[in-house]
Amino acid sequence: MGYKEIYDEKRAKVEEYLHKIMDSVKDNYLIKEAMEYSLFAGGKRVRPVLSMAVCELLGGNEEKVLPFASAIELIHTYSLIHDDLPCMDDDDLRRGMPTSHKKFGENIAVLTGDALQALAFEVMAQTDEEPIIVLECIRTVSVAAGISGMVGGQELDLLSPRETPQQLERIDLLKTGALIAASCWLGAIVAGCDIEGFQKVGGYAKNIGLAFQVKDDILDATGTREETGKSVGTDEKKGIKTYASLFGVKEANKLLESYIEEAKANINEFGEKAAFLRDLASFLQERKS
Amino acid sequence: MGYKEIYDEKRAKVEEYLHKIMDSVKDNYLIKEAMEYSLFAGGKRVRPVLSMAVCELLGGNEEKVLPFASAIELIHTYSLIHDDLPCMDDDDLRRGMPTSHKKFGENIAVLTGDALQALAFEVMAQTDEEPIIVLECIRTVSVAAGISGMVGGQELDLLSPRETPQQLERIDLLKTGALIAASCWLGAIVAGCDIEGFQKVGGYAKNIGLAFQVKDDILDATGTREETGKSVGTDEKKGIKTYASLFGVKEANKLLESYIEEAKANINEFGEKAAFLRDLASFLQERKS
Repeated sequence: MGYKEIYDEKRAKVEEYLHKIMDSVKDNYLIKEAMEYSLFAGGKRVRPVLSMAVCELLGGNEEKVLPFASAIELIHTYSLIHDDLPCMDDDDLRRGMPTSHKKFGENIAVLTGDALQALAFEVMAQTDEEPIIVLECIRTVSVAAGISGMVGGQELDLLSPRETPQQLERIDLLKTGALIAASCWLGAIVAGCDIEGFQKVGGYAKNIGLAFQVKDDILDATGTREETGKSVGTDEKKGIKTYASLFGVKEANKLLESYIEEAKANINEFGEKAAFLRDLASFLQERKS
Repeated sequence: MGYKEIYDEKRAKVEEYLHKIMDSVKDNYLIKEAMEYSLFAGGKRVRPVLSMAVCELLGGNEEKVLPFASAIELIHTYSLIHDDLPCMDDDDLRRGMPTSHKKFGENIAVLTGDALQALAFEVMAQTDEEPIIVLECIRTVSVAAGISGMVGGQELDLLSPRETPQQLERIDLLKTGALIAASCWLGAIVAGCDIEGFQKVGGYAKNIGLAFQVKDDILDATGTREETGKSVGTDEKKGIKTYASLFGVKEANKLLESYIEEAKANINEFGEKAAFLRDLASFLQERKS
């Protein structure tokens, strides 16, 4: 199978598992509709696919990581809903559709995000996996999602200076990188890795996370609304400084290239077994949305 | 020791544990300040005290339930912050102080709630307790906090009809009752109870939760801002129908009385051992804030 077939196969498993999760929510709330609206809006499922691929690379069964990988996707989805709120980024469009608060109202959007976060932990705690493994996954996700990870990065994104490459990298590492890195770690945990196993994928995880955000910024500066499915040029309009706006798209592409190259180098020792993860890095570099 | 001394002793343990949790957050974010601002604003800690008392009643060590009881308090605190937002209840005052978004801005208030929820799960997952017990507690909290519990109740509170006692009871059971009931269950789980143990405190938990919300509504209708530390008369001002406004304060007090009596009856079989939980029920009935 080529890269695309492997990706699509993994993604299909994620979609199926996410539907299974939402089918298990029996209550007939508007919040449930809003959860499904954002969850099934055509996300690429990069994070759960990363979990599965890392798990496989390290000798684990990729199906076993699905509950945890899906939990990451639930967290990611909630963060987008809250991020789009008028008091945050105030975005009207996401994946080509009205954002959650535009469609359901601000109050329901807040609650929908809250419910998705709770559901993420419920899904993990309900799995049949060994309790010690489950707890390690819950620890990983809770730290990555919280003040020392994603939410802390969101504060920096709102309030801290964005002048130097170092400042931007710190924000990106937390806001986007924490959850992407956690996705990789979940794969390693479920594969039963020790600290050495983590170190082997740690560099890949970090660089992929950074690359992801820089590419997002480049797309915001150069993409079209049709291609990306969301409002573009918003960083410039709102005066948000990104690597692309501070140093130009050409420099940003160079930085992206260096992250991707480093990510690939980090998993060099795995040889042919890591081909999919290398292709995934290239795909993230080339993506149009 | 009398009721008050026992309560204050348990509450002091909760305060100490909550400070230990926040001291472990090393990052120097405004969100951290906002988390502490709301968490240490003088809450009564009813939920964690309930966890401890139930744990003790059922033969467990109340100190062992502290991480889980504290997690419930973190969840409760986040729900107040999000509940007070302009797009939700739009309240300016909470426990005698400006609400989180008034003090820190709406964006920080949203993120602070999000971070508190993540921290609740992190705290539970980090404890030394037996993994199976920890997972059962995480399941209990995630279900009580999510769409099938508190958040679902918040949607009903915003959108569903509030005309009949049955409709009001359903909302209260979820919005307020789910977390209060979960507090009791955590005590039972950590005490190592089987399903029978749960059933023994289940009725108490349910009736205490209902009583708590009816009392809140009565206080909103009859209390003063000085006594309650929050804006009063807000239900009437916003046209929110409560048991007190629909059927009068006298009827609401009768309903409250019946919940409290039933709660006490539910733990009758424990005799003298349950004296504290009975006193706690009376205290909730009489409280002025």
